[in-house]
Amino acid sequence: MTNQSTCAHELAQADVRSVIHPHTVIGAPTEPLIFDRGDGAMLWDVTGRSYIDGTCGLWQCPVGHGRMELAAVAAGQIAKLEFYSSFGDYSNEPSIRLAERLLRLAPGGIERVFFTNGGSEGNETAIKLARLAHHHAGHPERTVILARTGGYHGMGAGSLSATGIDRLRAGYGPLMPGVEFLGKPHELEHGANATDLLVDELEKRIAAIGADKIAAFVGEPALGVGGMVPPPADYWPRVQEVLRRNDILLVVDETVTAFGRTGHWFASEHYRIEPDMIVTAKGITSGYIPMGAVLIGRRVLDLADGVQFLHGFTYNGHPVGAAVALANIDILEREGLLDRATKVGERLLRALRPLEELSHVREVRGVGLMLGVELDRDASAVQSGARTDGVIVRAAGTTIVLSPPLVITEEQVDELARVLIKHIRAVGETSP
Amino acid sequence: MTNQSTCAHELAQADVRSVIHPHTVIGAPTEPLIFDRGDGAMLWDVTGRSYIDGTCGLWQCPVGHGRMELAAVAAGQIAKLEFYSSFGDYSNEPSIRLAERLLRLAPGGIERVFFTNGGSEGNETAIKLARLAHHHAGHPERTVILARTGGYHGMGAGSLSATGIDRLRAGYGPLMPGVEFLGKPHELEHGANATDLLVDELEKRIAAIGADKIAAFVGEPALGVGGMVPPPADYWPRVQEVLRRNDILLVVDETVTAFGRTGHWFASEHYRIEPDMIVTAKGITSGYIPMGAVLIGRRVLDLADGVQFLHGFTYNGHPVGAAVALANIDILEREGLLDRATKVGERLLRALRPLEELSHVREVRGVGLMLGVELDRDASAVQSGARTDGVIVRAAGTTIVLSPPLVITEEQVDELARVLIKHIRAVGETSP
Repeated sequence: MTNQSTCAHELAQADVRSVIHPHTVIGAPTEPLIFDRGDGAMLWDVTGRSYIDGTCGLWQCPVGHGRMELAAVAAGQIAKLEFYSSFGDYSNEPSIRLAERLLRLAPGGIERVFFTNGGSEGNETAIKLARLAHHHAGHPERTVILARTGGYHGMGAGSLSATGIDRLRAGYGPLMPGVEFLGKPHELEHGANATDLLVDELEKRIAAIGADKIAAFVGEPALGVGGMVPPPADYWPRVQEVLRRNDILLVVDETVTAFGRTGHWFASEHYRIEPDMIVTAKGITSGYIPMGAVLIGRRVLDLADGVQFLHGFTYNGHPVGAAVALANIDILEREGLLDRATKVGERLLRALRPLEELSHVREVRGVGLMLGVELDRDASAVQSGARTDGVIVRAAGTTIVLSPPLVITEEQVDELARVLIKHIRAVGETSP
Repeated sequence: MTNQSTCAHELAQADVRSVIHPHTVIGAPTEPLIFDRGDGAMLWDVTGRSYIDGTCGLWQCPVGHGRMELAAVAAGQIAKLEFYSSFGDYSNEPSIRLAERLLRLAPGGIERVFFTNGGSEGNETAIKLARLAHHHAGHPERTVILARTGGYHGMGAGSLSATGIDRLRAGYGPLMPGVEFLGKPHELEHGANATDLLVDELEKRIAAIGADKIAAFVGEPALGVGGMVPPPADYWPRVQEVLRRNDILLVVDETVTAFGRTGHWFASEHYRIEPDMIVTAKGITSGYIPMGAVLIGRRVLDLADGVQFLHGFTYNGHPVGAAVALANIDILEREGLLDRATKVGERLLRALRPLEELSHVREVRGVGLMLGVELDRDASAVQSGARTDGVIVRAAGTTIVLSPPLVITEEQVDELARVLIKHIRAVGETSP
């Protein structure tokens, strides 16, 4: 709200004094980078410095920053009805319209919408509903959740239990029991016959646990936090076939991938998945208002037919979020941003691929406009280096993850690639 | 968005076809009541019918509906910076200002703020942080969470595990282990020496479990969903003393009670509690934008000093929510709504208290503007009856819960009481 450095300093001190940020060390806060405004794929901090947004925050803004149209929609809805509970038989028009719209965009078999405020709540919802559906259908022993190493599904006790990144769980236990982890769906790790190995593992694990003990399989179409990892091309159809054969529900966590990121409304289309549930959030409103939704398919509805779903979070069906989501989807359609994700994603991947020639770069990969560059060492120096050159990227362990707004221009993509290549080269010159 | 009954009908059909609402029966949707606009304590549905809002949705709107000022604030912030991640060292001015403001309003000992999107996420956060703090401080075996029968803390696997209402947990297990339930803090149940009994139970339970196995005690100052139950007057100071003596952290869930509901910023003031963490949401923005916060005290900061807090939900520190929260707190101050909660709450309690003379009314109770009327039978007929007379109240099992916006007028309170009394009398005339 100011460009004066004295005020910026005072704000930074207040942040250090008052806020605990996610993933920081308690008692040792660092000087914050305070963003002040955004426009498209550009951000400005409170000192007036500009940055290219290479991550879209946490993947949440396909339509980019600074959309005045969404400000007007939010204000219009607040002035009319800011919110009322959607529990029981209460409803509101924007949430009904959004549910209808989502069902028109969703893959075949999806028939109902349950609203949430984000991806964690969505995965908590999907896990609970999968168990409840089997319980109600006369199979109360079907409670096990299959998840994957490298998967990220959220930070609640249930969604975290299904998150296959060990360090995120340390010190919080005991969490929710009944989650079994399968191998990371990554060709780099398993080689050319990765799918054969992974499907074989899945079959054996189901046999060992007993299919009649398993409620659902939870997975991201392509791993997000786990390093922007697309699976082998034949992975999903074959996994889905095994699950169907064993009456195990398939929950596809599209928190990161939906609403254009992979060039489709849902990555499930890209990978030819017919999910029993889809968890979505982030891109649904481009993050302008917190919102999420769980899309529910026919098999779940049949199993759960007649059961009271005693579950729900306060802001379910928030009319402001729903109105903004509808306008956000309008923008994605009107500006052809799904195609743009594919086109710009290819340009960025093409620019970065030569990095694979460097000995400290293990892989450059991506689908649509979600890309990862995996190093043989911690990537945080690349993140901090790029920032000094006005480019925001994110280090997730050894991988630099990229997910710019879908509106990023060709010039901005080229500059992003130039800066990233420079700093990835630079970390190769030091020993790992 | 319309008053035409044809369109209202079409919308209702779309809702039935597309949405699963919390707490409804899957496969058997009911015709919805679709709200269209709100103003103060009044709501209008899409057919133009008006209602007095006796519950504030789910307790979330102390400043009432239709605040144009909050629409303008939300739009102004969206136009500038709608959102960027607050993970790591990223920050934004509204969230910093809000954190400072919250710390000025909070009870003594509270020193830091961690943002969330709602009460469930807040309780997931508090439970995780309590365990992590002990783990880091060299007591990894301190993992047990003490909670209470009748308590409600949310719908995630962790927050639900700490929720002491059995039917809300059925069919979802196994949930998070390590929660131990104590008796419901209610004089009606335990008689005049309720506190003696409850403190004795607490002491014995701690001895049985072993204090060195217990991370935290989680409780609402007055039970909300559990029936708007204020505890005995001497309950909290005595419970707090026992917990302190045993190095058990006290997490006070003020999702329902904070921001004026009990006539104070935090009910912890009213009950003379010095919490180690306070969970808050709902009233922080009056529900205009989903947001919550966990307020963290010195004892937690000392235990957790030096640990990386690998936890956080995407929309942490949302600038739109924070800007709206600041303006919402301005309104609460400017219009003296905390005092108004006390004054109007007394008027409503006075009007309803004579109901205790009816044989089917077990208790009329309340603190500030949160009230409960407990019957000897299911209360849902009262909810549906009052609605036909244009009054929205909520049946929570055998109790009618009341929590109107703090701006409700005297005339509206009197009408609310009149309608409620009529329908409570009516259900007494049928057999339970």
